[in-house]
Amino acid sequence: MDIAPAIITLTTDFGLQDPYVGQMKGAVLKEYPSATIIDLTHAIPAWDVVTAAVTIRTSYAFFPAGSVHLIVVDPGVGSQRSILIAQGDGHFFIAPDNGILSLLVSDGKIETIHRLEHSPFFSQNISSTFHGRDIMGPLAAALARGCNPSDLGSLVSLREIILTIVPTAVPKAHCLNGQVQRIDHFGNIRTTIRVGPGYLDPASFDFLEIGGQRINRLDRTYADVASGALLALVDSSGFLEIAANQANAAERLGCLLGDRIILHLVQK
Amino acid sequence: MDIAPAIITLTTDFGLQDPYVGQMKGAVLKEYPSATIIDLTHAIPAWDVVTAAVTIRTSYAFFPAGSVHLIVVDPGVGSQRSILIAQGDGHFFIAPDNGILSLLVSDGKIETIHRLEHSPFFSQNISSTFHGRDIMGPLAAALARGCNPSDLGSLVSLREIILTIVPTAVPKAHCLNGQVQRIDHFGNIRTTIRVGPGYLDPASFDFLEIGGQRINRLDRTYADVASGALLALVDSSGFLEIAANQANAAERLGCLLGDRIILHLVQK
Amino acid sequence: MDIAPAIITLTTDFGLQDPYVGQMKGAVLKEYPSATIIDLTHAIPAWDVVTAAVTIRTSYAFFPAGSVHLIVVDPGVGSQRSILIAQGDGHFFIAPDNGILSLLVSDGKIETIHRLEHSPFFSQNISSTFHGRDIMGPLAAALARGCNPSDLGSLVSLREIILTIVPTAVPKAHCLNGQVQRIDHFGNIRTTIRVGPGYLDPASFDFLEIGGQRINRLDRTYADVASGALLALVDSSGFLEIAANQANAAERLGCLLGDRIILHLVQK
Repeated sequence: MDIAPAIITLTTDFGLQDPYVGQMKGAVLKEYPSATIIDLTHAIPAWDVVTAAVTIRTSYAFFPAGSVHLIVVDPGVGSQRSILIAQGDGHFFIAPDNGILSLLVSDGKIETIHRLEHSPFFSQNISSTFHGRDIMGPLAAALARGCNPSDLGSLVSLREIILTIVPTAVPKAHCLNGQVQRIDHFGNIRTTIRVGPGYLDPASFDFLEIGGQRINRLDRTYADVASGALLALVDSSGFLEIAANQANAAERLGCLLGDRIILHLVQK
Repeated sequence: MDIAPAIITLTTDFGLQDPYVGQMKGAVLKEYPSATIIDLTHAIPAWDVVTAAVTIRTSYAFFPAGSVHLIVVDPGVGSQRSILIAQGDGHFFIAPDNGILSLLVSDGKIETIHRLEHSPFFSQNISSTFHGRDIMGPLAAALARGCNPSDLGSLVSLREIILTIVPTAVPKAHCLNGQVQRIDHFGNIRTTIRVGPGYLDPASFDFLEIGGQRINRLDRTYADVASGALLALVDSSGFLEIAANQANAAERLGCLLGDRIILHLVQK
Repeated sequence: MDIAPAIITLTTDFGLQDPYVGQMKGAVLKEYPSATIIDLTHAIPAWDVVTAAVTIRTSYAFFPAGSVHLIVVDPGVGSQRSILIAQGDGHFFIAPDNGILSLLVSDGKIETIHRLEHSPFFSQNISSTFHGRDIMGPLAAALARGCNPSDLGSLVSLREIILTIVPTAVPKAHCLNGQVQRIDHFGNIRTTIRVGPGYLDPASFDFLEIGGQRINRLDRTYADVASGALLALVDSSGFLEIAANQANAAERLGCLLGDRIILHLVQK
């Protein structure tokens, strides 16, 4: 047994203005007082299952194997929607059955999924609007302490859970049509175009169009261009990014979520 | 003795833009390097003692017994106002004597209160504007390590501390007059009307008026109504809430803090 | 050896909207699963090395000796700029070589600096845009576990690193010309005028001019003046501050970063 307590990460749409995140951490610590709890982000836009799916896909692997990732974006809280416990790539994932796990499934990372059925937590006072605190937090604590998913619910196949369609890149003749998937704190534009083996080959980048602008080169990092200049590069999660060196690219381009990006490919 | 370190929760009006919260955590860790420190919230509106009182009332019980709750909303910092150490329901509470503990007292949760008088911390460099860092943080660490409140100050009666009037629900003939107490990150409207034994009986709910709108039913959860529709329900802290399914109720209603809610009761 | 794990503090311009801070913590925990990680602040304005320098100068000493302070404000990420490991006053500091350590150096707090050269972390997948996660996070973990800076790079002299000019107070005949250095969450105005032995003697304060207003007295704390009134005082970091009791001084004065403050000195 490792001397370090297992890690529980939190990804929610709760924001930080209310005591909701704190209450959920309290509920985890009541079941497992020495848990290490790490905020992945609480700024998922309210009820936005797609952003939650993208966030956990691009983040979980930076944590130690054995981590428990709790993702609470839960528009159906209190309804008949069920709660899933997924296992794969050495990690655990807990989420409502609403599409949050879609990208982990399509990436082939998930090995088993159990649907929560019986749980000691169900016997206590459960609110109908905050299952993150009243069910999923204690459940994450139980998994982090070594509880076995098969003791908590029954195995379901990957085809039995809800999958969400997440925008991706569409290959056309001589080009890839992508979208703006996320604009980050710096104004960097994260796109749906994935780079790497099996996806876009960087050597095939010819030029790119976004918001009436054309970018003719794929650079390596911000400092490769003059201060304030636009550039295209591969972001730290392996997706195509449009940025500006020490400036806000999204503001500069008047760019919004979902805007179209056309990546023209080198003719071989 | 438990192997897990005691938990210290933080509730402040500091925000997260400045290094104040971090400095206060450093001061805790200097006294008790293995403390577990949990942010309850740092978004209490500046100097708003009432919101702090509501927040700690509805949150502390989600943490393990033995937790130390440090609440720093301190408009009188550096003045003659004193610092209180309260004990009750298996928890410790540290706050300036300015009304923060009012609701814990009126709920009958507080068993003893000590007024901080002598302290090893008083001997060090104390700023006159940041007692959260210079006095209360180290004090929370001392309590979490097992220090006895009676070694730090003298016992005071519940009548000797400052109590604040917190808006509540006013019973009228056939109705309850409440107020908007808090609008959360999702636009859910938390009211001053408490539900449960000794308070509002859900069965007596007839209809509710807020901002010129009428809600005719008490629902159980958001998904009980159509997407976008308004509803009334009991929130996860036991208060009446007005919300909209996957939409922002406060924006929809143009609702502000302090707005009136009239809850009409079933005539028996 | 202390039973408590070493503390790693984080100061960045990442904000909290994206999963970047969480990913960096994951990278720390992968190398050192029982590390205690504390957020100092993630709200440094984007690419603002000067604010980062001021923040770490005024904050590190509130943490236990042996802490590792990781400061990632890194406009030159992925370029030839190097990464520094500094030691002094019982603490460790990790930052890109871009001026972040300037004030620690000018305060005489830094004893040794090593430039990161070879590192086991260099062998893994390193992105060109997120060295906080891919290099500096694991490096902080290594230092916190007791790794020796001299095993990671070569000693450089204090004259070999990049120093940034940080606005300070300029002494004139009978007055000090300072600037607004930071406006905090409460609207308190932090200035560049330092108070204490070797700096401004509080007894020499005559009157102060800011934004067309005159303040005639140096007070001790907010509650020394009427609610809403302006005052000057020494802040909790030892700098001259202009504030208003339970009100927003910066809004009241229409005050912006960089605005001039003239402090008139008593004629001896």
